[in-house]
Amino acid sequence: MDTKPSSTTLLALSSFLLLFFLANSQPSHDQHHNYPRKPRPQRRAIPKPCKELVFYFHDIIYNGKNSRNATAAIVGAPAWGNRTILAGQNHFGDVVVFDDPITLDNNLHAPAVGRAQGMYVYDKKEVFTAWLGFSFVFNSTEHVGTLTFAGADPLMNKTRDVSVVGGTGDFFMARGIATLMTDAFEGEVYFRLRVDIKLYECWW
Amino acid sequence: MDTKPSSTTLLALSSFLLLFFLANSQPSHDQHHNYPRKPRPQRRAIPKPCKELVFYFHDIIYNGKNSRNATAAIVGAPAWGNRTILAGQNHFGDVVVFDDPITLDNNLHAPAVGRAQGMYVYDKKEVFTAWLGFSFVFNSTEHVGTLTFAGADPLMNKTRDVSVVGGTGDFFMARGIATLMTDAFEGEVYFRLRVDIKLYECWW
Amino acid sequence: MDTKPSSTTLLALSSFLLLFFLANSQPSHDQHHNYPRKPRPQRRAIPKPCKELVFYFHDIIYNGKNSRNATAAIVGAPAWGNRTILAGQNHFGDVVVFDDPITLDNNLHAPAVGRAQGMYVYDKKEVFTAWLGFSFVFNSTEHVGTLTFAGADPLMNKTRDVSVVGGTGDFFMARGIATLMTDAFEGEVYFRLRVDIKLYECWW
Repeated sequence: MDTKPSSTTLLALSSFLLLFFLANSQPSHDQHHNYPRKPRPQRRAIPKPCKELVFYFHDIIYNGKNSRNATAAIVGAPAWGNRTILAGQNHFGDVVVFDDPITLDNNLHAPAVGRAQGMYVYDKKEVFTAWLGFSFVFNSTEHVGTLTFAGADPLMNKTRDVSVVGGTGDFFMARGIATLMTDAFEGEVYFRLRVDIKLYECWW
Repeated sequence: MDTKPSSTTLLALSSFLLLFFLANSQPSHDQHHNYPRKPRPQRRAIPKPCKELVFYFHDIIYNGKNSRNATAAIVGAPAWGNRTILAGQNHFGDVVVFDDPITLDNNLHAPAVGRAQGMYVYDKKEVFTAWLGFSFVFNSTEHVGTLTFAGADPLMNKTRDVSVVGGTGDFFMARGIATLMTDAFEGEVYFRLRVDIKLYECWW
Repeated sequence: MDTKPSSTTLLALSSFLLLFFLANSQPSHDQHHNYPRKPRPQRRAIPKPCKELVFYFHDIIYNGKNSRNATAAIVGAPAWGNRTILAGQNHFGDVVVFDDPITLDNNLHAPAVGRAQGMYVYDKKEVFTAWLGFSFVFNSTEHVGTLTFAGADPLMNKTRDVSVVGGTGDFFMARGIATLMTDAFEGEVYFRLRVDIKLYECWW
């Protein structure tokens, strides 16, 4: 038997390469040029993240007595509210500004690896729920850079997903999903949040 | 004539494959590694969306008398304003928090398929214009998940585009453009907005 | 010597094409389907932007006396603050709404090519730092469309990066990084910011 490939074999291989390339290029093409996609079956496979991170952050709301420790303050309130007690009707209308320490575990006094900075508004009368806009500002041996988050936080749910809309530094151009969980709270002053960050777009 | 391809033909085909691949890989390469693009001609073809959705949402601003129906409240105002009447100077400086029902048609009393939650600030003295940050929180038989929006809303324009900056659940990692239209309003209390959502990045 | 390529050469070429294609397709594949990436070496090459823009914008905060010129107003403040003087403790808790002219050079009186519209919150007690959400609304011969920004602004730093989270019109679907620099300020009333915008996702 001849060990050399025939010309026909080569043609087949080349054709295979062509088909292979076309088949593989399709998803990329769709992604960028947006030809309509066929609906996928109901049970979708969640893609694997390109980076996963878990942090805790700690929100201590100013209540008129804790100015030394407070990391958050009510700065806007509806006509029926004030700025030292969260408003009635599930805090509807309260605007809170925060600068909370980020820790690697659930200990408030662990060394902070960064700060969670931004705002939330309680946006519903009937139930506790908020809209969040904030950034994680990292400045540790591990990470330097920021991640910016936005989304709805129906905070009575065990877990709730917000969007990671951008990043800088180590998180250059990142996008993803952050799952928030209320890990602990004390009255209406201390809230500890756990956040599981899954990035699905990583540039490096 | 010989039906078998000559070696020369094969070389040509292989070269074609190489060129074809290089030509096709270029857009994808550009997209990710960002070599500068050549300017395109003025009239650009708008890409086809990977998903299109139309909704209405209904904003009833608290005016001191309608607390039962109100879905929005003024929570911040400049020094010259207050929180039960929208400020003068085109409401410049008013911060409004909302939790509005989303419907499939323009009827306020149609079953809500979700809630539009977030905030807007009137940001200009000379003319009505606002900056928006909000999410659609869907919880219907049709959709479960969120879409998050941000952008300027020059609300005296017939249509204005804001960015869809992220999504979760059924709208996992989505991006796109939302076109807002004031569909109806009554005085300075009720506003009905139509929103045409066009997603250009769909993960499923 | 025979000038025609041997079959072996052709096979090698085809194999090369296959390998070449696989190697090149990997980044695109990673980007979209998110297989985990290998960590890159510490010194990363910053990708080349697909578009670069430089602008100045001018923030004149209302101080109770300058209502004719002011482009920004304090609209939220913590319990210890008010809305005509920025609060103590590094303005922690102040919410500022703005509509600032954008110019091509550092001259406040140069023709505006658009408006910077949105809000910032001073979010830290110990040092000046803010969280920003705003859009550039362009309407000039050069550009029509918007860019939307979000992120932390540790404004005592010489430069600070925020995320470009979306765009419309000429900046359809754009993403990138904006570097803010305080170019000049007068007291606590006038701030001139220089912003270097680098887009890394351009759709046209």
